[in-house]
Amino acid sequence: MVSFALLLCPFAVLSPVSALWPLPKSLQTGSGALRLASNFAIHVSVPNAPSDLLAAVQRTTSFIKNDKLERLVIGRGAADASALAHTKTLSALTVQLHSASQAKILSSIAEEARAPLSERDESYILTVPADGSAAVLSANSTLGLFRGLTTFNQLWYWSNGEIYTIEAPISIQDSPLYPYRGFMLDTARNFFPVADIQRTLDAMSWVKLNTLHWHVSDSQSFPLQVPGFTEVSEKGAYSSSSIYTPSDVNTIVQYAGQRGIDVLVEIDTPGHTAIISESHPEFVACAQARPWSSFANEPPAGQLRLASPDATKFTTDLLTAVAKMFPSSMLSTGGDEVNTNCYNQDPETQQALNASGKTLTEALDSFVQATHTAVKAQGKTPVVWEEMVLDYNVTLANDTIVMVWISSANAAAVAAKGFKFVHSASDYFYMDCGAGEWIGSDIDGNSWCDPFKTWQKSYSFDPTANLTEEEATLVLGGQHLLWTEQSGPSNLDSIVWPRAASGAEVFWSGSGMKVSAALPRLHDVAYRFIQRGVKAIPLQPEWCALRPGVCDLTA
Amino acid sequence: MVSFALLLCPFAVLSPVSALWPLPKSLQTGSGALRLASNFAIHVSVPNAPSDLLAAVQRTTSFIKNDKLERLVIGRGAADASALAHTKTLSALTVQLHSASQAKILSSIAEEARAPLSERDESYILTVPADGSAAVLSANSTLGLFRGLTTFNQLWYWSNGEIYTIEAPISIQDSPLYPYRGFMLDTARNFFPVADIQRTLDAMSWVKLNTLHWHVSDSQSFPLQVPGFTEVSEKGAYSSSSIYTPSDVNTIVQYAGQRGIDVLVEIDTPGHTAIISESHPEFVACAQARPWSSFANEPPAGQLRLASPDATKFTTDLLTAVAKMFPSSMLSTGGDEVNTNCYNQDPETQQALNASGKTLTEALDSFVQATHTAVKAQGKTPVVWEEMVLDYNVTLANDTIVMVWISSANAAAVAAKGFKFVHSASDYFYMDCGAGEWIGSDIDGNSWCDPFKTWQKSYSFDPTANLTEEEATLVLGGQHLLWTEQSGPSNLDSIVWPRAASGAEVFWSGSGMKVSAALPRLHDVAYRFIQRGVKAIPLQPEWCALRPGVCDLTA
Repeated sequence: MVSFALLLCPFAVLSPVSALWPLPKSLQTGSGALRLASNFAIHVSVPNAPSDLLAAVQRTTSFIKNDKLERLVIGRGAADASALAHTKTLSALTVQLHSASQAKILSSIAEEARAPLSERDESYILTVPADGSAAVLSANSTLGLFRGLTTFNQLWYWSNGEIYTIEAPISIQDSPLYPYRGFMLDTARNFFPVADIQRTLDAMSWVKLNTLHWHVSDSQSFPLQVPGFTEVSEKGAYSSSSIYTPSDVNTIVQYAGQRGIDVLVEIDTPGHTAIISESHPEFVACAQARPWSSFANEPPAGQLRLASPDATKFTTDLLTAVAKMFPSSMLSTGGDEVNTNCYNQDPETQQALNASGKTLTEALDSFVQATHTAVKAQGKTPVVWEEMVLDYNVTLANDTIVMVWISSANAAAVAAKGFKFVHSASDYFYMDCGAGEWIGSDIDGNSWCDPFKTWQKSYSFDPTANLTEEEATLVLGGQHLLWTEQSGPSNLDSIVWPRAASGAEVFWSGSGMKVSAALPRLHDVAYRFIQRGVKAIPLQPEWCALRPGVCDLTA
Repeated sequence: MVSFALLLCPFAVLSPVSALWPLPKSLQTGSGALRLASNFAIHVSVPNAPSDLLAAVQRTTSFIKNDKLERLVIGRGAADASALAHTKTLSALTVQLHSASQAKILSSIAEEARAPLSERDESYILTVPADGSAAVLSANSTLGLFRGLTTFNQLWYWSNGEIYTIEAPISIQDSPLYPYRGFMLDTARNFFPVADIQRTLDAMSWVKLNTLHWHVSDSQSFPLQVPGFTEVSEKGAYSSSSIYTPSDVNTIVQYAGQRGIDVLVEIDTPGHTAIISESHPEFVACAQARPWSSFANEPPAGQLRLASPDATKFTTDLLTAVAKMFPSSMLSTGGDEVNTNCYNQDPETQQALNASGKTLTEALDSFVQATHTAVKAQGKTPVVWEEMVLDYNVTLANDTIVMVWISSANAAAVAAKGFKFVHSASDYFYMDCGAGEWIGSDIDGNSWCDPFKTWQKSYSFDPTANLTEEEATLVLGGQHLLWTEQSGPSNLDSIVWPRAASGAEVFWSGSGMKVSAALPRLHDVAYRFIQRGVKAIPLQPEWCALRPGVCDLTA
């Protein structure tokens, strides 16, 4: 195969830069050129194919035509022209389910994308012959077909009107290493219009991320309009135009689902809830207490009165209503950064504790059990931040999912307690780090989690570091996270992309791959994203992007 | 005056947040409300008013109508409505020259903006009476009138269809503390289309920055098409579409001038010139030598053969041709990071040194004298980076302008040598710091100038620190700088704005003002920029922006 290709295509001895991201589990490529025929078409051979699969095929066709991604080499692929003139053309991609799967598929990509983590099947097989006969994409699920279409998209470069690969034939068998590959967006510190979230979902899908962890509310604002609780966003959103209505949520959830993405909503409790005091002052302790640094990690202070039966009922009812808005099998009740002093200084909380005879920790335990009972009653698995397990030893169901955020070093302790968890560590995946201090009047202040977490850093992450073999089975995956004290629509894309793609590969393909080998492909990701309207940033001077390896540390 | 206003406008006892940036030298405000009349107009009472003044008036009118900047307070100014119903309206702003100045003005804002630093007059006087009689803007120059129009723009908030101030009457006498207030953009590491530069010029003008220091070329690319030297960009630009043609340059220079901005172009020599080897290998030592770290501070290595008479003639001819493209009174020949090892290892350079009997330092001195002679022959003042003075003690004319970049601590040493200088220090004004390492294959690498330089940090800068009174007169001003290894059109706005406005105020209004007092006004800058299509970022959660001071460190 290789010798055949070399005869026809002398340029193939150059190291071609494949634009695949994340790398498939199994990838075999040749070194032959293959052009897409001008009448190239994708044929969907799936009985009763769901509409979101057909839409995905249309988007794929459109991207293939419009990406116009030139190879990132000197001359941008112009040297490929002569070989392309004499090569075969590919006229069709056939998309089909494995025969045994036809009866089992769910009604849509969206439905398959939001199935419980253990039930998802994202695997697919893709073959692109070099001889011009039809390429074939097959899978057990429409979700798997969608992932395969994303891969097929990435096979093609463009030069001077030709859409082509120089690596035919191509044979791929693929499935992700971890079922949870997410991105967390905080829409409470600053608000993001629906269109920004949709653009983010698009970009996520292009690198096979499958979960939007939506940190929708926090102490600063509550933009989610919850049926039965509309006063919370009416008083708690930044403005009437900075609200996600149930219709907006439905738009986002459907848009995500059609792109193979589940939306895991978080209502952070009992901390990070100051803004609820605008509509329900009776339920919030130490609301806007000063100095804020005595009562909270950042302004404003304010936490739900966890010992109050009324505040607990309000919270469980709110969570129940939120749960009905989101079809995911998961919902996060938060649980990070509970400030003890806030409760110690709150007369109502102290009175409630005295009345019940509970300690604060016991009251927290009861509060979380109540909220989780409500979440489970809606058929969902609760998700919590690591403190619930490590700091407060709250009674949690075995299937509770834990987000490890304070430090990657804490993963082992969470695993030791037997909980499934998602890597979300600030020392690898926090995208806001390194942007300086945002608290006012602090001239020499620095980012609390300085330095900036480069793509190289997150790419070097080992999901099973310091875990036993058994503990390693508790890793559900991981995610980058964007806390938005210093970001908004203006810098959403540029902070996130292409950096978050590094996590997408670690949790799909696995860790341990060399950053120097990944960088050329990541440049391709960035350039392709820009072509598609997502403002990814250059990771290096273009001079380096065009010369793989030459700007490495020891080059 | 104040008591009168209070009677009519009870809301005025709240602390209004003025959106002026930079703060005028002298500012007197009342606390009365004043609306713009629906037929508000700006009358230009300047004989033979230049067309760029008339265009600036049109832009001002358009911005006033379209900014729709709501006050950054809870309720966004809705509470102002009742008072506005009963207040006076302003129908006109009269724009005029001081009578003695009419004969002296130059032909346009552009021409006045590019006059030598010592000859510019940016002062103006602006009065806005509270009684509805015409506001008056007067100045000695059309450049001063332009600065005053920018200030007038910033006086107005918007709420529910009304354009208004709550601080009438307003009386301003203004002039800048320093004549050089710049922003440096590197268009060599990554390319920026003309439209991005124009948008940057717009934004610069809105905070009265007056110099674009255009670091147009570097070792990675040479995008400037120079008449007579077109081979340099033809071989040295990233692509044929990543070139600034003479027509592009003219567009940029004119666009800048019309906005009161001078364009100081830099052709960095003899270092940072590797890419010239693509068109003129004979003139470049150690071109792309490896390992790059032995020959340059970043890849690729390559420096002009400073000891070669032919390379020197090439350089002086190139600089002469570049000088003809730019009408500014200044031109930078660069001079930073000259790598000695590159020349020590270069046989041609060693041969030339032997032939001439010069040391490397003597050859550098001769080279710089030759290039500066060429620059001066074009009527321009040479500008250099600090190493020319501090490291190599090159023979420089007394009027040479020095950029202090390595450390703010080096300003005193430059001043001690009697040179005028521009603060460009990496420890205060480098906008790329804190974004992580961009060199490939460096997992734990960090930004060389970490941490991120926050706006608070640059705002705290003291331009005359450690200088004697006499040395302080050598300070021409200062600038923020964007080196673009990790930036491009995708993150230009978000890296620069509103942060670079901090320098704009320090070098217009002076230092020593409190960051806590500046922050609310800087929020206004960011919000206004976004309204105008410049993607400034949020400096804080909107919750903080709406509550001045409440998110301060000790609040």
